[in-house]
Amino acid sequence: MNINNHDFVQPVLDYLEQNKSRFIDDLCQYLRYPSVSAQAGHRADMAACAKWLVTHCRQIGLEARVCSTGGHPIVVARTPRGRSPKKPSYLIYGHYDVQPAEPFKLWKSDPFKPRIEGRSLFARGASDNKGQNLAHLNAVEAYLKTNTELHCDLTFVIEGEEEVGSTSLGSFLKSNRKELACRAVVISDTGMPSLKLPALTYALRGVVAFEVTVHGPSRDLHSGIYGGTVDNPAMALCQILAQLRDKQGRVNIPGFYDGVAELSAHERKEAARLPLSAADYRKFLGVPELFGERGYTFAEQRAARPTIEINGLTSGYQGEGSKTIVPAHASAKLTFRLVPNQDPAHVRKVILKRLRDLCPPTVRLEIKAGHGGEPYLVSPRSPLARAGLHALKEAFGHEPILMREGGSIPIVTEFKKILHADSLLLGLALPDDNAHSPNEKFSLDCYEKGMQMGALLWPELARIG
Amino acid sequence: MNINNHDFVQPVLDYLEQNKSRFIDDLCQYLRYPSVSAQAGHRADMAACAKWLVTHCRQIGLEARVCSTGGHPIVVARTPRGRSPKKPSYLIYGHYDVQPAEPFKLWKSDPFKPRIEGRSLFARGASDNKGQNLAHLNAVEAYLKTNTELHCDLTFVIEGEEEVGSTSLGSFLKSNRKELACRAVVISDTGMPSLKLPALTYALRGVVAFEVTVHGPSRDLHSGIYGGTVDNPAMALCQILAQLRDKQGRVNIPGFYDGVAELSAHERKEAARLPLSAADYRKFLGVPELFGERGYTFAEQRAARPTIEINGLTSGYQGEGSKTIVPAHASAKLTFRLVPNQDPAHVRKVILKRLRDLCPPTVRLEIKAGHGGEPYLVSPRSPLARAGLHALKEAFGHEPILMREGGSIPIVTEFKKILHADSLLLGLALPDDNAHSPNEKFSLDCYEKGMQMGALLWPELARIG
Repeated sequence: MNINNHDFVQPVLDYLEQNKSRFIDDLCQYLRYPSVSAQAGHRADMAACAKWLVTHCRQIGLEARVCSTGGHPIVVARTPRGRSPKKPSYLIYGHYDVQPAEPFKLWKSDPFKPRIEGRSLFARGASDNKGQNLAHLNAVEAYLKTNTELHCDLTFVIEGEEEVGSTSLGSFLKSNRKELACRAVVISDTGMPSLKLPALTYALRGVVAFEVTVHGPSRDLHSGIYGGTVDNPAMALCQILAQLRDKQGRVNIPGFYDGVAELSAHERKEAARLPLSAADYRKFLGVPELFGERGYTFAEQRAARPTIEINGLTSGYQGEGSKTIVPAHASAKLTFRLVPNQDPAHVRKVILKRLRDLCPPTVRLEIKAGHGGEPYLVSPRSPLARAGLHALKEAFGHEPILMREGGSIPIVTEFKKILHADSLLLGLALPDDNAHSPNEKFSLDCYEKGMQMGALLWPELARIG
Repeated sequence: MNINNHDFVQPVLDYLEQNKSRFIDDLCQYLRYPSVSAQAGHRADMAACAKWLVTHCRQIGLEARVCSTGGHPIVVARTPRGRSPKKPSYLIYGHYDVQPAEPFKLWKSDPFKPRIEGRSLFARGASDNKGQNLAHLNAVEAYLKTNTELHCDLTFVIEGEEEVGSTSLGSFLKSNRKELACRAVVISDTGMPSLKLPALTYALRGVVAFEVTVHGPSRDLHSGIYGGTVDNPAMALCQILAQLRDKQGRVNIPGFYDGVAELSAHERKEAARLPLSAADYRKFLGVPELFGERGYTFAEQRAARPTIEINGLTSGYQGEGSKTIVPAHASAKLTFRLVPNQDPAHVRKVILKRLRDLCPPTVRLEIKAGHGGEPYLVSPRSPLARAGLHALKEAFGHEPILMREGGSIPIVTEFKKILHADSLLLGLALPDDNAHSPNEKFSLDCYEKGMQMGALLWPELARIG
């Protein structure tokens, strides 16, 4: 068999076509597990979801096991290793945990009861990441069930803590460094601009997270009786946070921009290929006006520039009507997106210093460090990238584009550090998938093309060794 | 009978002494109703509480009825009018509604299961206002049950919307102007510095309330994918609010201080009589440092200076762990305390203008006006005030002091406007009663002395006509 001639893949593609309706059923089963890693109440659901995944992997012919960690379990599934000479090894990474679905009332249907409308499948985790990851499992199933030779040894590593910082994955990779040794890691957990523009993502933003609490009086106080004599923790918090960003979106923290790699002319040209006008983008987001750092297009701002975001605010009375109090404390959840080549440890340090400098003596500041991940950049001209671009083009029937992505996949840097493996980011999410938002969905077209792309990828990667 | 000789009151005082244990039971019954006016879920509890009150008033010999309003009902209870010549009429005002008890987890015992520890009775509403108001009912009960002549015609007006701005009371007073015509209104809903310093309150702060919401994208957005291209509504809210107050506690809104009456030398001297050091006050509140407008003592700041307070903040994800979103919106509950002679309508106008001026074009601002009340000032040298001071001194056995109070009783100005009646504010709350806070309590000593003060008050007021 000549792996440069891809005719032998046809039975695999036929199998994918014949089973496409059942693949949707499989995905719906997978999506029914409310595998929310951030919430302790879903611990049993996490375990049940991991168990379902292992059972599924075994049914399609993989050797699969659940690996316990200090947090949520990791599922590992391998293609059976034959007696033939060693083939090139690749990892396929995915995650079975999902973002919290709150606020539930904004969902048109139950986030954990998958609903199909047209060519969209609505459910929490449909796009991020269950649907994208299952596409790869389906492609491998097609190889195994049609007895078509896979010219690569494949190992799926599917974790349950991606949405909470992949706490356990690093030590798991270290402990299983030998078994998991690979040429590269294939990950579909990013986006593509449209079905006509499949994308290879060559850079990612990093992230550092904090939870900041301002403590004032030892209890909520009557604002009439005591107001005017104690600092209001909610106001103190607002006054601290307000100083962290200027009105053009630039982060106002000394040292924060240290190391930021400015965009090259070539990169700015690639970014400009995105087929989305600022007017359409504004409309899609539903904002009165776009906003962002001066001197950059929105495509550059969201992928190649660092940011500060307040993810949540909590203080005092939030119920119906009013409650005339000075609240005892006020909290904010903060994340900062980082770009190549910011150093997360340095960024954390300058943020902590700035927060402490801004805190007045009338309140007490408590800062909890949350998850973090380094920014990532890989050469789009490498053989690895070229193999991915080829599979994308064949499956989607359109010339793929090179993209920077604004999101963070902290584990990409872990793979680099621990396994010395680059990552191939072949994202299948469309811009309107509502990842992390109510009414998350996954395109059934992306699901099908994604499986084909997965099937076409392995001969390409086998070729480069 | 000579009403200048108070010996005839002795049977009334004896009755109060003999029944003091049963009066505690009555108060506990009253406190078991979770009469939270702000929360729609407690509507039935509100009605049940009003019903209990009417039944109780009838049992002690009053003519009582529940009056429906557009909101929560008002209980009216009158002493039986005899055939003797008309006596001077007085109103006694109180409220049976209470503040929300949230956050429940900070209560040492169920807020609606009264608990006695030493000389304190713990329950939501114990001090504000069920205990204080029931003391007056008990005093009148003692007159009626001992057949001691009351030289005044008394009408209790006990409403259910004080904690949500007394929305219905104004129109109720207007509709019943004739029946409710009175010389003055007696109200125990304020505070006293200690059992050795009973107090007459001669001034109150007013209040205006707002709920401010900043709307950004039409849904929560993934902060990695979109962060940097849209304004963050939580940050926009913080930046707006941060500009409303300077770091010394002065409200930063043009026109806000228009009309503020500066304190006279005499008033500052009275304020200085408060037997509380700044160090003890700071310790009592549990703050790292006191805070407030420069040039005023804490006693002046909390009673005679206007303020801004953030009562609550809400935005985005507030659960466990993190959720990497740009939230769709962010809200704040705000109250401003006003002092004589600020005009609430003018203050509302300048606040609205300031909020709109501060809002950037990248988000949409929604402002809901909440409840409001005018500040109040009455002469402490009037015969009315002197009668109150006399009753306080006799009941508590100590020289009372004259106070300004930081809280708001908006209806005091309603009584003035609609019934042309001054209010006599004879507060029975101690500084550590935790009104509006978890673990609210009422001192059983204040309860007993309060009943005696109530009993001694009517001959005094009858005397001045």
